[in-house]
Amino acid sequence: MKVSIIKIGGNLIEDESVLKKVLQNFARLEGAKILVHGGGKLATQVSEKLGIATQMVDGRRITNRETLDVITMVYGGLVNKTIVANLQSLNCNALGLSGADLNSIKSVKRPVKTHDFGFVGDVTAVNSEMFSLLLNNNITPVCCAISHDGNGQLFNTNADTIASEIAIALAKNFEVELYYCFEKKGVLRTIEDEDSVITDINTEIYQALIKENIIADGMLPKMQNCFNALERNVSKVFIGSIDMLSEENQLRTTITL
Amino acid sequence: MKVSIIKIGGNLIEDESVLKKVLQNFARLEGAKILVHGGGKLATQVSEKLGIATQMVDGRRITNRETLDVITMVYGGLVNKTIVANLQSLNCNALGLSGADLNSIKSVKRPVKTHDFGFVGDVTAVNSEMFSLLLNNNITPVCCAISHDGNGQLFNTNADTIASEIAIALAKNFEVELYYCFEKKGVLRTIEDEDSVITDINTEIYQALIKENIIADGMLPKMQNCFNALERNVSKVFIGSIDMLSEENQLRTTITL
Repeated sequence: MKVSIIKIGGNLIEDESVLKKVLQNFARLEGAKILVHGGGKLATQVSEKLGIATQMVDGRRITNRETLDVITMVYGGLVNKTIVANLQSLNCNALGLSGADLNSIKSVKRPVKTHDFGFVGDVTAVNSEMFSLLLNNNITPVCCAISHDGNGQLFNTNADTIASEIAIALAKNFEVELYYCFEKKGVLRTIEDEDSVITDINTEIYQALIKENIIADGMLPKMQNCFNALERNVSKVFIGSIDMLSEENQLRTTITL
Repeated sequence: MKVSIIKIGGNLIEDESVLKKVLQNFARLEGAKILVHGGGKLATQVSEKLGIATQMVDGRRITNRETLDVITMVYGGLVNKTIVANLQSLNCNALGLSGADLNSIKSVKRPVKTHDFGFVGDVTAVNSEMFSLLLNNNITPVCCAISHDGNGQLFNTNADTIASEIAIALAKNFEVELYYCFEKKGVLRTIEDEDSVITDINTEIYQALIKENIIADGMLPKMQNCFNALERNVSKVFIGSIDMLSEENQLRTTITL
């Protein structure tokens, strides 16, 4: 059986009309599928309204107790349930999941090296038995970027990593395709040119693109998740817009080893 | 197969140490089980912090758009995921559900008679097929007080009613027991006397207690849910504290027709 895992970025969630179009594309996709989402700037907006200060260290956000509660409310509640209700209206039997639900994604608190990032988890296990049960019953899991430690603690967790870890775990029993969808058509050679999509990236090209400074910043960990998935038997990995799910010949970046 | 459906009231959720004890009692309960919860005053507190005014008509709350979002965040996100993570730590394979998840609870917007209560739903269907699938796989559903209309709209829904409607739907295929747990030991004869529990209430006694003004206000719809469940083949219905789940000879109110 083939399973498509689609991760949607924050920019596709924040605008209601954009999200509707994204979910229409997702719902139309045939076969077993899993949606993974974060919450984009919504959590920051709610935090600000609640007067919770964003703690940063070296430009990276700290997830303190209050911020974790907001993430649980926004990602696990508002965003997740909005997506699930919309998918149900599109005849997709969606089921929202945090990592605690069905013990689906287990993690450990990120070890403190130079900084303590607070309630941030690094994924240690994906419950492929439970995902298989759902997929075999035509249920579509909708996973938010929250994991748990098995001892009652929830953790904020990178959505790209959750997507690749689910893909890797399911690759043992399924043919898995992993799609990272965001607001661009793929990895761009020139950031100002929306159509300058680099259609194929392998490890060799990747190293060259890093040297040329074309791949940098947030794209680096995303690419690492892609290669990590490919090295661990995920069949295909793509980066692009949501249109790549439905349109043939759509520009997109295909990642290979 | 026997299924126990336990609804826990708002006062059992608001205090972290009380909630832990409640979940320990729930997790110890043997056999198939379902937990139903609201969110108590937490939603009101978050609304206040966010500066959302509570609209009231004739002493009853109106669920406007902003309030629905808060309810989705607090009941569907923070409270639900906190409960699920804690149950997982107690070896209970919990799965949090809104009515949209798995299309588990469908509703229609409450018809406008004298007042428009806003985004409030009256339950029209419970997906017993999905609940059966979960229970047969040793999964424990944890349902928050949110339903959906199947067209993408979520609705705030009374948690007592959700519990009785699930009980009624499952009574077709299971032996169902329904437990309404709150901070008291049962329906009290004298509100000041915590031990004045009326141990048995049937329809005849119920009418007498209404005349005596012993049952009034919020207890009236709760009792209606109890009788409604019994009339539609739910085996047993109880009102009492969480201790009634574990302790023999514990004081509690047993409802019969």
